[in-house]
Amino acid sequence: MAFSDIMKQVVNGTEGALGALVVGLDGIPVEEYSVSSEIDLQSMTVEYSTLLKEIEKGSQISELGTTKEVTVIADQAMIMLRRLNAEYFFVLVLKPEGNFGKGRFLLRMSVPKLLKEF
Amino acid sequence: MAFSDIMKQVVNGTEGALGALVVGLDGIPVEEYSVSSEIDLQSMTVEYSTLLKEIEKGSQISELGTTKEVTVIADQAMIMLRRLNAEYFFVLVLKPEGNFGKGRFLLRMSVPKLLKEF
Repeated sequence: MAFSDIMKQVVNGTEGALGALVVGLDGIPVEEYSVSSEIDLQSMTVEYSTLLKEIEKGSQISELGTTKEVTVIADQAMIMLRRLNAEYFFVLVLKPEGNFGKGRFLLRMSVPKLLKEF
Repeated sequence: MAFSDIMKQVVNGTEGALGALVVGLDGIPVEEYSVSSEIDLQSMTVEYSTLLKEIEKGSQISELGTTKEVTVIADQAMIMLRRLNAEYFFVLVLKPEGNFGKGRFLLRMSVPKLLKEF
């Protein structure tokens, strides 16, 4: 299954999802699927990829090992970032009232499918 | 109820919890309750408070508003950070196999109780 199809499944299966991205740790998106123009996914992702690097550094220093998942709940959106491999993350963005648990579940389930595409 | 009692309730009520802290955005802990020596809560928190500031900056730039909650799932631990007010966060640290959902619930429920103590 193509990246875009897997991303569609996750986004369309999650109530309140705004979009999804596969993105490198350098912040460059590989693929994007958006169902809303409310949020600029790409510019948001560039900001958060800087965070990912910081979080990774924090985890290493605190000897917590590799970061597997990060979620940020802000006033305007919920962002879930799930590690795919050493270089790439899958990002799901939801409205504040979106179904967080469902998104998290579908995001996790989609990781092995996405990894087959690398 | 004192800070320490509220923190005990959250930690003891969450399967796999290692400890909890009330910490300033500057990384200085106000109160700490730990049930394990597996992880150095304080040094970990200093690292993560830097992250909090970065995340806050990222949220502002991406116009997502104030950050309310951040969770980081790493190989060795799960860390949940919940905003109390403009200056302070409540941090809960769990084992990787700990009850994430329960911790998240108790952490949220404890916020109004903690706020009464400020």
